[in-house]
Amino acid sequence: MKVSHIETPAVLIDLDVLDRNLKHTAELTRQAGVRLRPHFKTHKSVWIAKKQLEYGACGMTVAKLGEAEVLTEAGIDDILIAFPLVGESKLLRLAALINRKVKVTVSTDNVIVAKGLSDLGESLGTRIPLYIDVNSGLNRCGLEPGNPTAELVKEITALPGVEVRGLMTHGGHAYGASNLQELRQTAAVEVEVLVQTQHLLAQDGITIPEISVGSTPTSKFIAEQHGATETRPGAYVYGDISQLAIGSISMNEVAMSILATVVSTPREGTVIIDAGSKTFSIDTNPHCPGYGRLKNNPDVYIERLSEEHGIVKLPPGITFSIGERLEFIPNHCCTVSNLHNKLLGVCGDEVLQDIYVDARGKIN
Amino acid sequence: MKVSHIETPAVLIDLDVLDRNLKHTAELTRQAGVRLRPHFKTHKSVWIAKKQLEYGACGMTVAKLGEAEVLTEAGIDDILIAFPLVGESKLLRLAALINRKVKVTVSTDNVIVAKGLSDLGESLGTRIPLYIDVNSGLNRCGLEPGNPTAELVKEITALPGVEVRGLMTHGGHAYGASNLQELRQTAAVEVEVLVQTQHLLAQDGITIPEISVGSTPTSKFIAEQHGATETRPGAYVYGDISQLAIGSISMNEVAMSILATVVSTPREGTVIIDAGSKTFSIDTNPHCPGYGRLKNNPDVYIERLSEEHGIVKLPPGITFSIGERLEFIPNHCCTVSNLHNKLLGVCGDEVLQDIYVDARGKIN
Repeated sequence: MKVSHIETPAVLIDLDVLDRNLKHTAELTRQAGVRLRPHFKTHKSVWIAKKQLEYGACGMTVAKLGEAEVLTEAGIDDILIAFPLVGESKLLRLAALINRKVKVTVSTDNVIVAKGLSDLGESLGTRIPLYIDVNSGLNRCGLEPGNPTAELVKEITALPGVEVRGLMTHGGHAYGASNLQELRQTAAVEVEVLVQTQHLLAQDGITIPEISVGSTPTSKFIAEQHGATETRPGAYVYGDISQLAIGSISMNEVAMSILATVVSTPREGTVIIDAGSKTFSIDTNPHCPGYGRLKNNPDVYIERLSEEHGIVKLPPGITFSIGERLEFIPNHCCTVSNLHNKLLGVCGDEVLQDIYVDARGKIN
Repeated sequence: MKVSHIETPAVLIDLDVLDRNLKHTAELTRQAGVRLRPHFKTHKSVWIAKKQLEYGACGMTVAKLGEAEVLTEAGIDDILIAFPLVGESKLLRLAALINRKVKVTVSTDNVIVAKGLSDLGESLGTRIPLYIDVNSGLNRCGLEPGNPTAELVKEITALPGVEVRGLMTHGGHAYGASNLQELRQTAAVEVEVLVQTQHLLAQDGITIPEISVGSTPTSKFIAEQHGATETRPGAYVYGDISQLAIGSISMNEVAMSILATVVSTPREGTVIIDAGSKTFSIDTNPHCPGYGRLKNNPDVYIERLSEEHGIVKLPPGITFSIGERLEFIPNHCCTVSNLHNKLLGVCGDEVLQDIYVDARGKIN
């Protein structure tokens, strides 16, 4: 099948770029002596997860049990659930994974969740490995580093059915950086605050083997991050505007694009394409206006999205005709892939591979 | 199954409210002597579409062929595709629907799309019914009303394989209204500009039988909209913050909510829930901050969304504990339902009905 013949809208993945991205990050982490545990949430594709493992990843990171279950079915047996598991039904599903001999690590930032896991661990006659989530600046989950986290770890260490294996953080606020210096600083802080807390605990005789960090932008600095043992980038596989805008990747690292057709030319300076928020997702970006930019001319951007319409703003002198097919780079590759059952792996004008989003919509 | 036992996150639909919403709008349009052609894109559920028809809808509106195909499979045979169909593969799929004796009407705002449809109509020995899309203020598809649209209609009327059956517009900018007066004004303009254009064409001997209007908020004024023959609301079935915020519905018309669990309480004034942008969608609202509000206390809202985390801001004096389950109203019900394979129809604490989102992700 030719790209020029497929129906639009369609999400395209440049297979050469994808492969290069996977290999490049694997090599970067290998050289830094740090384990790569990529986040599955970006692609949710078993085919890509297997490639990541083949290229040297130590296992996968997921946010939800449903994603872990998809990976387990595919025979992948070392999974970090970087999310607190709360409630009886979640614990029963975790038990099923443990009983299948999957090495599952769970993250939390409080003793109540740890207690639930410990009770489960005890009932299964095992100690469930835990990462303690620490706030390095994103202000999402995680207590403050230093004493607040150290006190929590001491409390959790006393529980019989869990084992604190690591400290983790996610420097997702790196996407707000204005320049590479700010980005490098966020990456440095990500590791420093964990290592400081690790040292604090060592003084009390508590050894924390794993220091797990990494957003896609901060993971680029892994060679400078002394003390990290593991990095968990997700979006690096595809690339998008959120990474381009802060300079953490260049255009030749963008594997994802959205192919759309011009279906209306109602006014000067505006054309309408057949792809809206149900194709692009509606994530915005603090550095760029709009919802997607034309691949070969970033001055052309999507000004508004309805659910099935993209309203494209044209700079003076640019026009497009009904039926013309345009290729856009989306703002956020992770939310795009979750909207689709499959993406199309392409090489030039050839569609070579259906990339199934196996864990699409697995929010539980 | 009890609501109190289901896993979170989950999208709940109050079945009583849903039924009341369906009946109320059906009754409103019946009394106004206007046909109701609800937009399928909101719920994408065959089960709900059949209820809408049972309560008096004349047929369904869709945005994409994939949605029309799902309805056709379910035996629904009067469908408006309120979107321009461009490209050979789309026309082949339209031909398949026509060959199955489905009455399909297509909308467009230009002669190139109309020509493609006309060629198809000729080859099938039929005239494909068209609605001409007109801009009543949303500035999406559609030429300006009056002469620009009238000239276009004259051109298209000359084509042998299509028949201009109606003028249509979508007053989606009604969601930006600041008060009921503005809303009423948008509703009035929606019809007026079409009727004026219809009269202009009548002077040239061109009869346009159908005047099709309606966003959910403007359709509330259908009884005042003299000249409309059809209205196409979508989101009225579920209700959401975008409708609440402009006063077009009240709280007892909101059928959709999202049930989530508190999984982290990292800082004073903030809790984290297990539902993020992959559950809520990330649509914003000009009138309300955040991405969702607590059903029983609208002062509690979701300040930020990661993909699987909701960062909930608490007003002073309010706290929630790990494991507590909270019910939120989302900003935009249409994009929420498209993220899920099924929603749960509930009555009090009982889950009574799986509502399958049959056309989820049908963007082609």
